[in-house]
Amino acid sequence: MTLDPISPGVLFDHARKARIGLPEAVFCQGKPGSNLRDLMVSFGRGQGRPVLFTRLEPSVFDSLDDSLKQVYDYDPVSKTAWGEKCPPSAVLGKVAIVSGGTADAQVTREAARTLEYLGFKYGLFEDSGVAGLWRLAGSLEEINSHQVIIVVAGLDAALASVLGGLTPRPVIAVPTSVGYGLARQGESALASMLISCSPGVAVQNIDNGYGAACAAARILNLLPTG
Amino acid sequence: MTLDPISPGVLFDHARKARIGLPEAVFCQGKPGSNLRDLMVSFGRGQGRPVLFTRLEPSVFDSLDDSLKQVYDYDPVSKTAWGEKCPPSAVLGKVAIVSGGTADAQVTREAARTLEYLGFKYGLFEDSGVAGLWRLAGSLEEINSHQVIIVVAGLDAALASVLGGLTPRPVIAVPTSVGYGLARQGESALASMLISCSPGVAVQNIDNGYGAACAAARILNLLPTG
Amino acid sequence: MTLDPISPGVLFDHARKARIGLPEAVFCQGKPGSNLRDLMVSFGRGQGRPVLFTRLEPSVFDSLDDSLKQVYDYDPVSKTAWGEKCPPSAVLGKVAIVSGGTADAQVTREAARTLEYLGFKYGLFEDSGVAGLWRLAGSLEEINSHQVIIVVAGLDAALASVLGGLTPRPVIAVPTSVGYGLARQGESALASMLISCSPGVAVQNIDNGYGAACAAARILNLLPTG
Amino acid sequence: MTLDPISPGVLFDHARKARIGLPEAVFCQGKPGSNLRDLMVSFGRGQGRPVLFTRLEPSVFDSLDDSLKQVYDYDPVSKTAWGEKCPPSAVLGKVAIVSGGTADAQVTREAARTLEYLGFKYGLFEDSGVAGLWRLAGSLEEINSHQVIIVVAGLDAALASVLGGLTPRPVIAVPTSVGYGLARQGESALASMLISCSPGVAVQNIDNGYGAACAAARILNLLPTG
Amino acid sequence: MTLDPISPGVLFDHARKARIGLPEAVFCQGKPGSNLRDLMVSFGRGQGRPVLFTRLEPSVFDSLDDSLKQVYDYDPVSKTAWGEKCPPSAVLGKVAIVSGGTADAQVTREAARTLEYLGFKYGLFEDSGVAGLWRLAGSLEEINSHQVIIVVAGLDAALASVLGGLTPRPVIAVPTSVGYGLARQGESALASMLISCSPGVAVQNIDNGYGAACAAARILNLLPTG
Amino acid sequence: MTLDPISPGVLFDHARKARIGLPEAVFCQGKPGSNLRDLMVSFGRGQGRPVLFTRLEPSVFDSLDDSLKQVYDYDPVSKTAWGEKCPPSAVLGKVAIVSGGTADAQVTREAARTLEYLGFKYGLFEDSGVAGLWRLAGSLEEINSHQVIIVVAGLDAALASVLGGLTPRPVIAVPTSVGYGLARQGESALASMLISCSPGVAVQNIDNGYGAACAAARILNLLPTG
Amino acid sequence: MTLDPISPGVLFDHARKARIGLPEAVFCQGKPGSNLRDLMVSFGRGQGRPVLFTRLEPSVFDSLDDSLKQVYDYDPVSKTAWGEKCPPSAVLGKVAIVSGGTADAQVTREAARTLEYLGFKYGLFEDSGVAGLWRLAGSLEEINSHQVIIVVAGLDAALASVLGGLTPRPVIAVPTSVGYGLARQGESALASMLISCSPGVAVQNIDNGYGAACAAARILNLLPTG
Amino acid sequence: MTLDPISPGVLFDHARKARIGLPEAVFCQGKPGSNLRDLMVSFGRGQGRPVLFTRLEPSVFDSLDDSLKQVYDYDPVSKTAWGEKCPPSAVLGKVAIVSGGTADAQVTREAARTLEYLGFKYGLFEDSGVAGLWRLAGSLEEINSHQVIIVVAGLDAALASVLGGLTPRPVIAVPTSVGYGLARQGESALASMLISCSPGVAVQNIDNGYGAACAAARILNLLPTG
Repeated sequence: MTLDPISPGVLFDHARKARIGLPEAVFCQGKPGSNLRDLMVSFGRGQGRPVLFTRLEPSVFDSLDDSLKQVYDYDPVSKTAWGEKCPPSAVLGKVAIVSGGTADAQVTREAARTLEYLGFKYGLFEDSGVAGLWRLAGSLEEINSHQVIIVVAGLDAALASVLGGLTPRPVIAVPTSVGYGLARQGESALASMLISCSPGVAVQNIDNGYGAACAAARILNLLPTG
Repeated sequence: MTLDPISPGVLFDHARKARIGLPEAVFCQGKPGSNLRDLMVSFGRGQGRPVLFTRLEPSVFDSLDDSLKQVYDYDPVSKTAWGEKCPPSAVLGKVAIVSGGTADAQVTREAARTLEYLGFKYGLFEDSGVAGLWRLAGSLEEINSHQVIIVVAGLDAALASVLGGLTPRPVIAVPTSVGYGLARQGESALASMLISCSPGVAVQNIDNGYGAACAAARILNLLPTG
Repeated sequence: MTLDPISPGVLFDHARKARIGLPEAVFCQGKPGSNLRDLMVSFGRGQGRPVLFTRLEPSVFDSLDDSLKQVYDYDPVSKTAWGEKCPPSAVLGKVAIVSGGTADAQVTREAARTLEYLGFKYGLFEDSGVAGLWRLAGSLEEINSHQVIIVVAGLDAALASVLGGLTPRPVIAVPTSVGYGLARQGESALASMLISCSPGVAVQNIDNGYGAACAAARILNLLPTG
Repeated sequence: MTLDPISPGVLFDHARKARIGLPEAVFCQGKPGSNLRDLMVSFGRGQGRPVLFTRLEPSVFDSLDDSLKQVYDYDPVSKTAWGEKCPPSAVLGKVAIVSGGTADAQVTREAARTLEYLGFKYGLFEDSGVAGLWRLAGSLEEINSHQVIIVVAGLDAALASVLGGLTPRPVIAVPTSVGYGLARQGESALASMLISCSPGVAVQNIDNGYGAACAAARILNLLPTG
Repeated sequence: MTLDPISPGVLFDHARKARIGLPEAVFCQGKPGSNLRDLMVSFGRGQGRPVLFTRLEPSVFDSLDDSLKQVYDYDPVSKTAWGEKCPPSAVLGKVAIVSGGTADAQVTREAARTLEYLGFKYGLFEDSGVAGLWRLAGSLEEINSHQVIIVVAGLDAALASVLGGLTPRPVIAVPTSVGYGLARQGESALASMLISCSPGVAVQNIDNGYGAACAAARILNLLPTG
Repeated sequence: MTLDPISPGVLFDHARKARIGLPEAVFCQGKPGSNLRDLMVSFGRGQGRPVLFTRLEPSVFDSLDDSLKQVYDYDPVSKTAWGEKCPPSAVLGKVAIVSGGTADAQVTREAARTLEYLGFKYGLFEDSGVAGLWRLAGSLEEINSHQVIIVVAGLDAALASVLGGLTPRPVIAVPTSVGYGLARQGESALASMLISCSPGVAVQNIDNGYGAACAAARILNLLPTG
Repeated sequence: MTLDPISPGVLFDHARKARIGLPEAVFCQGKPGSNLRDLMVSFGRGQGRPVLFTRLEPSVFDSLDDSLKQVYDYDPVSKTAWGEKCPPSAVLGKVAIVSGGTADAQVTREAARTLEYLGFKYGLFEDSGVAGLWRLAGSLEEINSHQVIIVVAGLDAALASVLGGLTPRPVIAVPTSVGYGLARQGESALASMLISCSPGVAVQNIDNGYGAACAAARILNLLPTG
Repeated sequence: MTLDPISPGVLFDHARKARIGLPEAVFCQGKPGSNLRDLMVSFGRGQGRPVLFTRLEPSVFDSLDDSLKQVYDYDPVSKTAWGEKCPPSAVLGKVAIVSGGTADAQVTREAARTLEYLGFKYGLFEDSGVAGLWRLAGSLEEINSHQVIIVVAGLDAALASVLGGLTPRPVIAVPTSVGYGLARQGESALASMLISCSPGVAVQNIDNGYGAACAAARILNLLPTG
């Protein structure tokens, strides 16, 4: 047997949506370029097969053929793309995404874009870090009008604890790699969230806005539709 | 000012239940013994104030006066105690607690006891590790009949990924400190759960069965009552 | 040369007080018992030489002769002892010690006892963790009436960031080893404090209440006397 | 809701100066370029709103319009910029900044520039590492004529301990990421400073010259004015 | 003695094949370019001396003279090259290489290419991660028809445990550096494999497809020939 | 549902032997005592069901009833026990277990006892560390007369590399937690083995002699019987 | 083959002294008790075979028969024992052992005792930490009259850098596990010594006073005899 | 005071040579370019002031004026430069530098170049890794004819232990950052050397060939001259 270096054998998990309520997504980072291109050709607009591409670097997207780029909705901040979105969900629920600062934008937007792709509604509450508590206090009531809360924060991630102590909603916390030195690429924010002094905060991997949206979707899918 | 070594100034957060839907709990580990005793006197059965005590070592509980022990429901496996439970919740939902092995019992039971204390229903599915997949396969349908799933696993924690790929339910994963060497007191199980190849798995701190139950409660509190 | 196992050659730094404003202290942990006993005999009450003993375990103190114990003021929570205190300072300033919870008592009290020994005034604000923000809010004005603030907190140590964003005072933050799992014996609280989103928070080693008091003393010694 | 990728919702904390005595600063690293440009337009010279920009890479500053660059005082070594400085402080105090070597220049200068921006006086004592103790000895008296000392050092950071044992002043220690191998990007210098054998040394995050200046400012603001 | 910067003194271990059954290989990463070129000239096609070059970056290979490139079989995905292969082995055995996803291709292919170079047969089963168990289930019988199994997986590496619980074959597990955040460049996958809940899984260094093939070869060399 | 603290729900994997060639074993560490006792009653001599108990502390074994102890073959060095062994294997192969020193005895013997339990033959070559190479040199020929080699070593684990460079056999390396300081409870030995300069060394978790024996068994089961 | 749990096969390296100038030593920690007793019987006074026992806990030594204890010179601070010492060396050289504090006594004394056992002369300079530089300054000239310097220090280990900058002698640095929190059981002291800003400091494992003495002996053995 | 970004205040330690026998060196990594250029102008050939520049990247050296480059002896493999060398030492001793492989060349050569600069003699024994023990065996006698041995090795660094067990000479071990995955940029090689099973191996920081040469120089300076 001799290896064909072009086309690693992809086994697409099309049954995932039926099995767990979430369609498969393509994690682009580290995938060979030719492999990504093949996948993007297969799942463009008009194919009737919604697939989300995450961690798709602008330089990679820019290198695609124009015809291919035109059938994709690409956002360079969140590094996400899709050819088609899932149909809107009818559940009576929406997600509040609260972030510590604008430096967290990539992750905040990855969560937002994933929710949009999955057909869910959300509200954005950026730059709400606890160094200036008045910012969070001013929007707390509106945040609590959402059914699920995603908290995105780097550095000490104190926002997760403060908000967790102020809301009865499910809180999904996403640490970000913002910061330097002891921020340790987000490891310290992750630890803060996992040992939050507020009970019942649930945590995602560092910078995993996509995962937070999926966790929120699993909860929203339990709610009544209307 | 001269310090009184006996009674550190406790500020009990009685408003927590109203604010976030979860009553305050007492984390006993590391608290001075006299302080614990004072708290247990205050919150025993018949006081009308439900409080959960977690991480209460058997040796500490055994050292209490008999009269105090009699007004507490104490479980030495989960190391939890309460004087009174919260009233049963009317929500139409229950939690499946799935564990990798019987060595995870302390954490599995801490989650179960916390749910019981909070007034929620649950089912236990222990010893379901993926080294023998037939065990999980045999109970998957019953597990999926619950609204929320708590996965408790140590070692490689592969159970979270496998189950996360088989259920549409919210999955709250709790790594345990079971194992030795590279298990690193649960750090490796934690990492496995955070980087699960199944999307939307939400994670708690190592051995934090209490936190998993609280996270489940935040979700259950969104569901209709019946 | 043959070793005498009894009396390692101690070189006491009596000039320290004149040089840096702080008398030498004896860190007892790990010191051979016979060495500790010799030192305690030398520095008891009535010798005119104030020395603070820190990390002196109750079991070690209890093993001393009664006559020696009687000339020492020992506190088992903070594990500190002195034969004589330094004379009261005349500076116009005092320290607020704010802690996250009663489980931090050993460190909180080590800071308080060290300040008392050095002759400074302080106020204690325990159990002020951010999971219930009303506790901190209620005492903020009084805290700010002190010139220096010591913050003692374990777990996610969010208290340092929240308080750092609410006070113009110098903030000396001490992480504690309270917690389990990702608390990592205080490493996570330490990291949180070092990467606080509030500017100008200065940090001590984990559980180092003594060091926090010394850092506060260096500041207080700059203030006018009255 | 569809995301606008251009302008994440900034909530500027203008009240910070009144609340904690330090105006808000903009941490530029990782912020989207368009967001930075908007902020720099808002806070240039003549706007009457002093804001400090830190961690602003020369390549980013160079990419700005000439007209914008002309209203900013930018220093490429410290990577700091401001449109306007705060008015000079009237406090009777100044800061000594002592560094181990010229390789620490970025951090040393970030501290110095921040103090200049905040309106405080300082003196610089660079290249004073303990491998040649005569350098520190020669300037010790002059260093001690300042009210607050900032120590900047990488590698083993022994300078903090040596200086801490020679001065009664508040010592704010900043570890730097200078070195390789076991220097671990400054983690070892940080640890050395936190476990200094000299009491009362207070520590900042790795390379955080800005934070050291803010901590010094909190102290200086306690001093009498003249 | 003055150093010649061009030709570090190479001592080639030609006796390795006779001693341990595996010819020496050249690990190219970090080797000076001139040294690599000298080695490639020595071991090209027609020299009768099979040598495998691993971790040979495309940019390095591309910089070689065309005449040299033509005598090498180079694969840019696995970054391997050889001038001549070893003669085919006559053992009655072959290797199944099973990978979690196509992002693992570099490692998967390094194992495959090394086996081809050594003269062994193998089958490839890519994209078999446990998030969609049906993929593994569908090929299990065919996988078990091989004598040795190499498992290549990143992230949580749950595939090693699941497959280890389904096959009696020797399992050689290779963690990959695929993933971000808590994936920690493959450290977490490595830990998962080492603490697999399935017994007898043997592990290689992160991304070491070459080593996995060598370990498989040591086993295959025990089997009867036919 | 109310928890019964006595009998966690065990699901024994009796089909494991048929599926993967290795019967299930009971990892005793951390299991509740009552649970262990129940299991040992079920699997004692004469029950026809061979089960291996590992990590069974002498203090736990000693606390059993005498009647139960008499039906078990227990070894306190390896901390292993069985009621019945598996029938002897007929494969034409045996295992050499080579250790660095006698301080590795617990792990060396756990591997040996597991092989004995599984029905395989082995030879022991203890105290063969490379600080005195003559020890290994003297037994190399005899070691190579075995089909599989298990190397057990702590500290720098150089033995794995040296032996890996001298034998064509499959090498299964087990790091041990012997040593202090930078030995880091075996983490450094583990790393040394994983990055061995000899190719094809396969590694087990720290102190996992049981796993090494299972990995050897998977290989031996491929060999012809005689 | 059935294991004899009593007597693991010891292979004593009697040729070590001839080969490397240092006789073999017995590292007692973790060795089974019966094994230690056998070794101590073999190497007691009058056997003509000098062997050093290190890390021999007082509780283990105390458990020996009185007759055996009487033929050993045991020191409980350094935890070392020997039956016979090596004959005095005739080299014209001696070792200065300089320590940071009396809490380092176990390591300081292990180095001293090992040198005594090997037949070398040394001088002790304890409690010379840099927090009070006058202590080191006062003995520097005498320290430099020795040919080799061993520096023993915990915490920030600044002593190694300061002394390394003041002496032309070979400096062998031993970090100790003294301290808490960021001391990390000596890891931070180790790092400080390895990245010392003074050139040519050579480092031993944490707490390895024995190794430091051996490294000193290797140097002393180069010197002329007299 | 306004900062001059061009010329940080250098305090050159010209007295170092007299104090510790080693002239000051300039560690170039991370130093601002203008600062480096100033230093190189000051210490070129003909100035009578020997200074060694280490970690001087080829790209930095190439950017210098031709006239400046011509007065420097620069070696791009070791990244070292000098204008003048120290006069040759008259000591009766030389250093053997033994390396594991040619990938260690940068470090091996940095040690060699530093010795050449300091005026000492040395011999090079590269590519002597233990995977092929015959290479080391073949040159052992010649290696032992040197007075001091520097061992340079990456990966598992087993060479230090093997050689340490075969030579009576002082052994200075330098770990290198060669390798990937668990090599952890040389941390694992460092640990292996620090916990070597051969006694008296002294260790330098990762990749610190310069430090190893300085440590060797401190020893050589003790030897008689001839």
